Amino acid sequence: MDNDRTTPIGQVTPATGSAASPGVRPLDPWLSSYAARTHGMRASEIRALFAVANRPEVVSLAGGMPYLEGLPLQALAETAHELVLRHGTTALQYGSGQGDQTLREQILDIMRLEGISAHPDDVVITTGSQQGLDLVTRMFVDAGDVVVAEAPSYVGALGVFRSYQADVYHVPLDDAGIIPEALEETLTLLRSAGRRVKLIYTVPNFHNPAGVTLSLERRPRILEIARRHGVLLVEDNPYGLLGFESDPLPAMRSMDDEGVVYLGSFSKTFAPGYRVGWAVAPPGIREKLVLASESAILCPSNASQLAISSYLAKHDWQGQIKAFREVYRERRDAMLDALAEYLPEATWTVPGGGFYTWVKLPYGLDARAMLPRAVHALVAYVAGTAFYADGQGSEYMRLSYCYPTPERIREGVRRLGTVVSEEADLVKLFGVEGRHDEDAVDQPGPDVS
Amino acid sequence: MDNDRTTPIGQVTPATGSAASPGVRPLDPWLSSYAARTHGMRASEIRALFAVANRPEVVSLAGGMPYLEGLPLQALAETAHELVLRHGTTALQYGSGQGDQTLREQILDIMRLEGISAHPDDVVITTGSQQGLDLVTRMFVDAGDVVVAEAPSYVGALGVFRSYQADVYHVPLDDAGIIPEALEETLTLLRSAGRRVKLIYTVPNFHNPAGVTLSLERRPRILEIARRHGVLLVEDNPYGLLGFESDPLPAMRSMDDEGVVYLGSFSKTFAPGYRVGWAVAPPGIREKLVLASESAILCPSNASQLAISSYLAKHDWQGQIKAFREVYRERRDAMLDALAEYLPEATWTVPGGGFYTWVKLPYGLDARAMLPRAVHALVAYVAGTAFYADGQGSEYMRLSYCYPTPERIREGVRRLGTVVSEEADLVKLFGVEGRHDEDAVDQPGPDVS
Repeated sequence: MDNDRTTPIGQVTPATGSAASPGVRPLDPWLSSYAARTHGMRASEIRALFAVANRPEVVSLAGGMPYLEGLPLQALAETAHELVLRHGTTALQYGSGQGDQTLREQILDIMRLEGISAHPDDVVITTGSQQGLDLVTRMFVDAGDVVVAEAPSYVGALGVFRSYQADVYHVPLDDAGIIPEALEETLTLLRSAGRRVKLIYTVPNFHNPAGVTLSLERRPRILEIARRHGVLLVEDNPYGLLGFESDPLPAMRSMDDEGVVYLGSFSKTFAPGYRVGWAVAPPGIREKLVLASESAILCPSNASQLAISSYLAKHDWQGQIKAFREVYRERRDAMLDALAEYLPEATWTVPGGGFYTWVKLPYGLDARAMLPRAVHALVAYVAGTAFYADGQGSEYMRLSYCYPTPERIREGVRRLGTVVSEEADLVKLFGVEGRHDEDAVDQPGPDVS
Repeated sequence: MDNDRTTPIGQVTPATGSAASPGVRPLDPWLSSYAARTHGMRASEIRALFAVANRPEVVSLAGGMPYLEGLPLQALAETAHELVLRHGTTALQYGSGQGDQTLREQILDIMRLEGISAHPDDVVITTGSQQGLDLVTRMFVDAGDVVVAEAPSYVGALGVFRSYQADVYHVPLDDAGIIPEALEETLTLLRSAGRRVKLIYTVPNFHNPAGVTLSLERRPRILEIARRHGVLLVEDNPYGLLGFESDPLPAMRSMDDEGVVYLGSFSKTFAPGYRVGWAVAPPGIREKLVLASESAILCPSNASQLAISSYLAKHDWQGQIKAFREVYRERRDAMLDALAEYLPEATWTVPGGGFYTWVKLPYGLDARAMLPRAVHALVAYVAGTAFYADGQGSEYMRLSYCYPTPERIREGVRRLGTVVSEEADLVKLFGVEGRHDEDAVDQPGPDVS
């Protein structure tokens, strides 16, 4: 990945090589030995962009990296010192597979802000909520089983579902989140077709990538539908406490403790570098989740868990989240103002929190085909196709406002506006077909060369 | 797990609940939804012992926890302080899926001690070597594929293979490690039977649990057999630098860079609490390994990686390993002396390094059936059955000398000697059958009540 530093701007290469292009390197002698699930693995479109988008001259509206400059590093450094000095032989040792008891109790305090009441035994610490998602999928999904997910969905979840050979069926969302009638219809059709639906996957708050939030009114309806169809609901909630305008909505887990696996994370409200998230699950599932995690990693990092536990005990974590919310609100505003000024022909969602807005391009434009030109103009985003299991979404892009400063966001959107205008002019001159002279649209994987 | 604190000594309950005993709790309403692989998950015999074996009054010869009191905690605390203060926004942020470039370069220096020459691109950082093993198995094993492993084998590896529904075939080892002729015969038989053998799994140095080391003479022979049968060899090497008497033997990866995935770990030579290990793999496999790891956890912990990288850069890590070797050699000697004194009718391996000796009980004794009585006598071990996929091994036990002091080891083996003597007297009185009045032997899972 690091040798990509020398890749010229505009010639984006996948960050992790490309299993989809065997012509590039000698044939892998182990190709015929891989498991069936391995043949579906490919670099995500986001990862493929990383090497280029991280260069200082590029304004990246692509990544989901939180803003960490606001953290009290001096105080955290002292906490880290104290931790190793006083509790080193615990922090550096193996720990429990389920995770540190004190941290699990502290997590209950966090979840209480969203109305969840649970017992420390219900909580399993994971290596980021990504691992929680991987383990839940591993526990439930046989090849050919169905996962129902919003359209669009978090790219990292789609990767997990693909790696367990799930078939993903998308259910549309609108400004109030996933649409209950559409969910009902999809589940009914799948049942009629004899399909085994194992999971409903949803990001209810400040959705990644769509930026929308599931309304309070819809939450019990979604749960009722899931319950009636006997399908477990996975509530993935990394952004729930990062609302700009109001108190957090009650989590779906607060309304149903038997039919929901809730995934939480410290990555957006504190820091992702420790890789600590958690899952809350009904007892039978939780027991197996601990076994699955022990098989995958033995136990989560004590060093990371104790660092976070100390942070929660010694610092004003709620005040810190409020400060983060202010930072992200200001950036959201900068993003929306700039979109209104520089992309007047596009439409977008207005996120009430979180990191992302979801932009629909003017008619005829293709976000994926346009990406190399955008990167050439020194701005990066993620094309909408990354967030669908079935190749749709080319008219959308996800813009992140979490990491760049408001000034950089404004400059990035200005650059993007220029690219979009030029692209729209081409479409007007040559028609929608004219833009399809390059084959990027029809290629699998992160082909943006 | 924590409510096990109140379990009376002698009534050992599984630490993580028991999927194998549905009568104990209300039926899991999601039981019919689990994937096929989930039904094979069960608590390892080692994990089941943890809650009891960790009590101060019990001498635990069961766990594989390294001795950490020897680490320079004062200096490590200062390093941790510096890391957060100066590099906090990197250490606390997301990182590369493959792992930190500097750490991957430092790992090359470590592996050079075992004759390995590699490029930083060949290295993938994992969440402990357990995750490396999980990912390699995920990449190669379809349900019903075969993994060939030593008899006995590392219990955590057997759990991974089971979780991917592999069939494990054991190949015997002797004092010079896995026996080439037996490996050849097993692979030939499996091929004749039309089985797809995907991996050969081996711990060549200071084997867990057997304590033996694969001889230099056998290494190229094992590689040649694997190559001829077209099977990937997984060289799991957490203990390689912890030899008591001689320089490390050359790793098998140093003799074959196309047919071996090498797994390394900082858990035994530095500290397990960071959960950092690594894999070295041929290019095609390595690319997929990065994708698989990104799907499982997005990226390894930057905080953990940078802490280890700083340790390697600023401290005399080779001197520290030498100090650890002295500690463990002294404990190994205490163990062997005590065995000679208190278990004269047993036999055991003489480990040249690492953490374990493998004890064969006098005729007729069953280590698993005896375990509750041993725990009652305040000494714990792991019964041999944990280290086989097929229920054999009841006449063996694994004794660890890594964690207790020499005095405690001696006291533990003394207690064990008393239990073994009493047990042997019973066998003499009533015959081998007489001891089978309890059903523990025939039960699946960690039933030692």
